[in-house]
Amino acid sequence: MPVTGDQQLLKQLNRMALVRQVSAQPGSSRAALADVLGLTKSTVSLLVRELVEEGWLAESELRTTGEVGRRATPLHLDPGRLALLGADVGVDEARVVATDLLGRVIDALTIPYEDAADAASCVRLVALGLAGLARRLGRLNAAGGPRRVLGVGIGLHGAIDEAAGLLRHAPHLGWRDVDVAGLLARHFGAGGPLAGVPLYMQNEANVAALAEFEFTPQSATDPLIYLSIGYGVGAGVIVSDRLLTGLHGFAGEVGHAILQLDGPPCSCGRRGCADALIGLGALLGDSRPSPAALQDLFDRVGHGEQAACAAVAAAGRQLGVLLNNLWASFDPMAIVIGGAALRLGETLVGPARAVLAGYAAAAMMTAPVIRTSQFGADAVAVGAAALARYRLTRPLGA
Amino acid sequence: MPVTGDQQLLKQLNRMALVRQVSAQPGSSRAALADVLGLTKSTVSLLVRELVEEGWLAESELRTTGEVGRRATPLHLDPGRLALLGADVGVDEARVVATDLLGRVIDALTIPYEDAADAASCVRLVALGLAGLARRLGRLNAAGGPRRVLGVGIGLHGAIDEAAGLLRHAPHLGWRDVDVAGLLARHFGAGGPLAGVPLYMQNEANVAALAEFEFTPQSATDPLIYLSIGYGVGAGVIVSDRLLTGLHGFAGEVGHAILQLDGPPCSCGRRGCADALIGLGALLGDSRPSPAALQDLFDRVGHGEQAACAAVAAAGRQLGVLLNNLWASFDPMAIVIGGAALRLGETLVGPARAVLAGYAAAAMMTAPVIRTSQFGADAVAVGAAALARYRLTRPLGA
Ligand SMILES: [Zn+2]
Ligand SMILES: [Zn+2]
Repeated sequence: MPVTGDQQLLKQLNRMALVRQVSAQPGSSRAALADVLGLTKSTVSLLVRELVEEGWLAESELRTTGEVGRRATPLHLDPGRLALLGADVGVDEARVVATDLLGRVIDALTIPYEDAADAASCVRLVALGLAGLARRLGRLNAAGGPRRVLGVGIGLHGAIDEAAGLLRHAPHLGWRDVDVAGLLARHFGAGGPLAGVPLYMQNEANVAALAEFEFTPQSATDPLIYLSIGYGVGAGVIVSDRLLTGLHGFAGEVGHAILQLDGPPCSCGRRGCADALIGLGALLGDSRPSPAALQDLFDRVGHGEQAACAAVAAAGRQLGVLLNNLWASFDPMAIVIGGAALRLGETLVGPARAVLAGYAAAAMMTAPVIRTSQFGADAVAVGAAALARYRLTRPLGA
Repeated sequence: MPVTGDQQLLKQLNRMALVRQVSAQPGSSRAALADVLGLTKSTVSLLVRELVEEGWLAESELRTTGEVGRRATPLHLDPGRLALLGADVGVDEARVVATDLLGRVIDALTIPYEDAADAASCVRLVALGLAGLARRLGRLNAAGGPRRVLGVGIGLHGAIDEAAGLLRHAPHLGWRDVDVAGLLARHFGAGGPLAGVPLYMQNEANVAALAEFEFTPQSATDPLIYLSIGYGVGAGVIVSDRLLTGLHGFAGEVGHAILQLDGPPCSCGRRGCADALIGLGALLGDSRPSPAALQDLFDRVGHGEQAACAAVAAAGRQLGVLLNNLWASFDPMAIVIGGAALRLGETLVGPARAVLAGYAAAAMMTAPVIRTSQFGADAVAVGAAALARYRLTRPLGA
């Protein structure tokens, strides 16, 4: 019987489902996987053999069950043979990381842009960093044998057209319509360590959402929202195992949801946006504040200076309104807060939690869990690696 | 070769995909379907034969193509043999409709609740109405032969736990924790015309969104938002062919997104919600206004009374803010506005469009299409029928 198009697709879907299931339930046996996925044991055995050969899965020590002769070898994602690369193309510098299949960072580089202010120069530095990491992964090293890079993800601080590989607009970088995918592909060229490796790109909040979703034991957190509060405000939203991107890739741009009619002007041209009431740019009155100005704000809040703390607390109350509105719109299981503004700590987040709790009490409902990102300053870079794993383990069009 | 579980599932997925594809592209030939869906022609022929036998699909007149002996019979959804039932369990009365597979109303009943104020009595009246329609469909009639009812959908004006079949809370009806599915199943009982017919229920805005999505030629409108403005405000959101329901079924409850910090009190207990600034209840200062009070508002606005028009225009500007925020959150292709408030016409919608256009101009972006529902007062009842078709033609868990 010939393998037709739909059988090939089915096989690929089943392979992906196996990887996702082993990720969600490490230690699953072939029999358990067959049960959960509704596949025959022979199909599972065949696909697991392929996935073990390719480096996706590994077997742990053999366990014997009660039945004589019955084997139930636990399977898990192999942390040792494959790697994912992720880049956070930040506003002041880039951060590139290599992770294993579980999202654990195994190598990393920080790349200051210095004088390379234009997009093409920055992207070139990122490409060099990624290729450097790939070369180190390809060599035998202290951390184990050489690794093959499965995919590369890029997180960008702006609006992305992922299908076209374009960065549409990055207001805090001052970039417009940059062919990031084209520039990177040119640098990876033919023959380099990343030639032909799949490349994916997304907005920074979207990739950070994927880090929380793909690389945490609570991967059953769905719907999940990641709210990024840096110079600006944006969200990544995952619903039913899918990243919401919207018609143009702008879904989750909740920084430009209006919280105050005729409020303060926003970098986008509107007035009263969440961005203009909550973001670090708004707190400093500058959409591209210098690192020194940011540090000064963190210091003043750290020392309890009254005016600074009051301004941050006011932003925190608006953040509470935004959390309420995300709750009403998406009914998520959890909202994860991340971004540079987390350095303001409870001065920012405390008032937000209090406002949200007040709304929940008034409505006699239970608000979603609010927690902070577990990847800290690497949330976007690790998220970019998560984007690669996400795309590689989902059907086309996910 | 035995048919295993995953092959059964694959067959069901392919059947559903065929129905959806014929709905999207009426007149498709078997060869075109095989092409688009990546199936073999023999698989398509087999499944089409089944679907024609069951009443889903019908063939139009034979067309011959250039090639000698090549047949390309156009297929379309059969409007004549099957039916869907939908009920709008409204605040003052219920509306039940029977539609064909294309969503065209073929029979309808309006059911006043009169003294039946409690939930159980209202649901009983709805069950009687649905059974009455099903009996009429089962008889030979002027509109054609007897029809088999494929499924029943129920649209409810409150928060729904679809998996449990429960209405959690309907503030404008005053109902809490009503086992609507259980009550209906009891009335349908054994032996009646609806015994064993699949039953589905959802929030009114969600089903109205499905009407626009399933039953319009622009079914490629995705993401699509339906914004219902009646006594309160709610939205149904469809993304990537899926209705977003959220963790508890509350996704799209944007009536309780806050547009004005410390604004007017809302029926939910919060302050400054969209509901409390835009809904008809807010305009009349009464969360359950009488039909007479509503009519009086419509008359005063119709006659251009200044105070009434100014209040409606203010609500319209807040509606513009809400449209902007839906745009920022979901990046939809279109937002469809429906509900009783549409009777306020351009006095309400004009200012909303103007505010949204202002934001789009300020941000140098193109706002999503804003249009009004094409099913008018039947939007929820037809939507409930659409819910049945939607669930019946999507994989489990859609
Ligand atoms: Zn803005
Ligand atoms: Zn409210």
